[in-house]
Amino acid sequence: MIVIGEKINGTRKEVGHAIRARDEKKIQALARIQVDAGCDFLDVNVGMPPDREPGDMVWLVKTIQAVCETPLCLDSANPEALRAGLTHINAPAMINSVSGEQSRIDGILPLACEFKTGLILLPLDETGIPKTSDGRMVIAEKLVSLAKAGGLSEDQLYIDPLATAISTGTDAAMVTFDTIEKIRKAFPGAHITIGLSNISFGMPLRSLINQSFLSMAILSGLDSAIMNPNDRQLKGAMLAAEMLVNKDKYCQKFSRAYRSGKIGSEAAGTK
Amino acid sequence: MIVIGEKINGTRKEVGHAIRARDEKKIQALARIQVDAGCDFLDVNVGMPPDREPGDMVWLVKTIQAVCETPLCLDSANPEALRAGLTHINAPAMINSVSGEQSRIDGILPLACEFKTGLILLPLDETGIPKTSDGRMVIAEKLVSLAKAGGLSEDQLYIDPLATAISTGTDAAMVTFDTIEKIRKAFPGAHITIGLSNISFGMPLRSLINQSFLSMAILSGLDSAIMNPNDRQLKGAMLAAEMLVNKDKYCQKFSRAYRSGKIGSEAAGTK
Repeated sequence: MIVIGEKINGTRKEVGHAIRARDEKKIQALARIQVDAGCDFLDVNVGMPPDREPGDMVWLVKTIQAVCETPLCLDSANPEALRAGLTHINAPAMINSVSGEQSRIDGILPLACEFKTGLILLPLDETGIPKTSDGRMVIAEKLVSLAKAGGLSEDQLYIDPLATAISTGTDAAMVTFDTIEKIRKAFPGAHITIGLSNISFGMPLRSLINQSFLSMAILSGLDSAIMNPNDRQLKGAMLAAEMLVNKDKYCQKFSRAYRSGKIGSEAAGTK
Repeated sequence: MIVIGEKINGTRKEVGHAIRARDEKKIQALARIQVDAGCDFLDVNVGMPPDREPGDMVWLVKTIQAVCETPLCLDSANPEALRAGLTHINAPAMINSVSGEQSRIDGILPLACEFKTGLILLPLDETGIPKTSDGRMVIAEKLVSLAKAGGLSEDQLYIDPLATAISTGTDAAMVTFDTIEKIRKAFPGAHITIGLSNISFGMPLRSLINQSFLSMAILSGLDSAIMNPNDRQLKGAMLAAEMLVNKDKYCQKFSRAYRSGKIGSEAAGTK
């Protein structure tokens, strides 16, 4: 699994405050704690009004890169902010995200091609999120074609099957799983990633729902997630699911995470 | 999901002791706690040497039926013990289990047909558990044919896809999921049940592994499990998974279980 750590997100109150206050220590601590948990990319979302975004993005990129070499996933709908960040990036990066909306295709896709970054593709457009997996596939296929025409390989593409809230429609997860299976079949070389927490919006016991959802999505073919890598229960479910789909040779990753105290309850025993 | 409560099992030291000591209160408490948790059948395993088994089975059946009306699942390889128990049973029962071993087919299958009980089918035979899903299907198909020829309907059959330990072969769960999908396709009217805990034998954090495994098995088509209905985390995963596969209208079962405090950590909050 390729884990994209979600914590450096300026739309969260305390993170937004740290960005405005240029609080390097706070941001660097958020980077370190996620890197220590083993995440593969750090999502970087400025979450500011558009006019501030490019400057804040550059500050964030520099601040994070000063303490870790983990690749960054620049998260913005603003092409200027993305370009500003990308010109200061050290390691191969990712862009989060392009959708089927024409303005995003025009503004963001060319940046991924120019900087040869990974790219998250969202199968939604001006009319919203298609209710069916077939509807999502139409947009996904269009975006993959455009990305390939621009020089990106399937391995650089991270397609998001999208999850809507189960509380507002009980077929939400099944549509997601269907979409994952269709993406896996159509684009065997592409990655499939998802922001996990939408599924449980409006429900109690959200972490429990997210754990089951993640396990089932991994069985369907998911190989990446945008998540909190420090959620011990969720990470435990992720490593258990990877092991169960036979992607953990000799159960080593699971066993090591257990022995180093990274999964299970804090007072981990044999249960 | 049809939950078969596993706690009344004489191979467990304290339960075996209670049976030998004719400790009605202990057995009835084990029955009540599982019924209160909402289980659909109570597994009844005497776990004694064969010569004691029929008498102990009758005592257990009477003792449990004195305090609850939940159907019983008589768990034995001894036809005499099963017959003794079945002659005292009040509600439609289940037998756990018949396998492809000829002695089981000869001794147990006719009892299910005579008493018109539910029947758990294990796709293994004298040579052991087939390593592949196709191998398991050959035996499952034979057992279903025999059961139908004896007058049982598909709805009375509970086919177990079998789970071996992931610690001894990392393809174990995938073979189980494949077998579930093939059973679901071949016998759409049959139930699919499983003893969950084998999968995590020899591993740490067994409950966590069992939760992911159960979620994935439900996505594959599982609709029953032999489990501890009082394991709050496992039950939470089960209800979450049922909800996610769109088998919980308006998310009612999940929400009710949460509100009545039956799932989630003891100190359940909004997480």
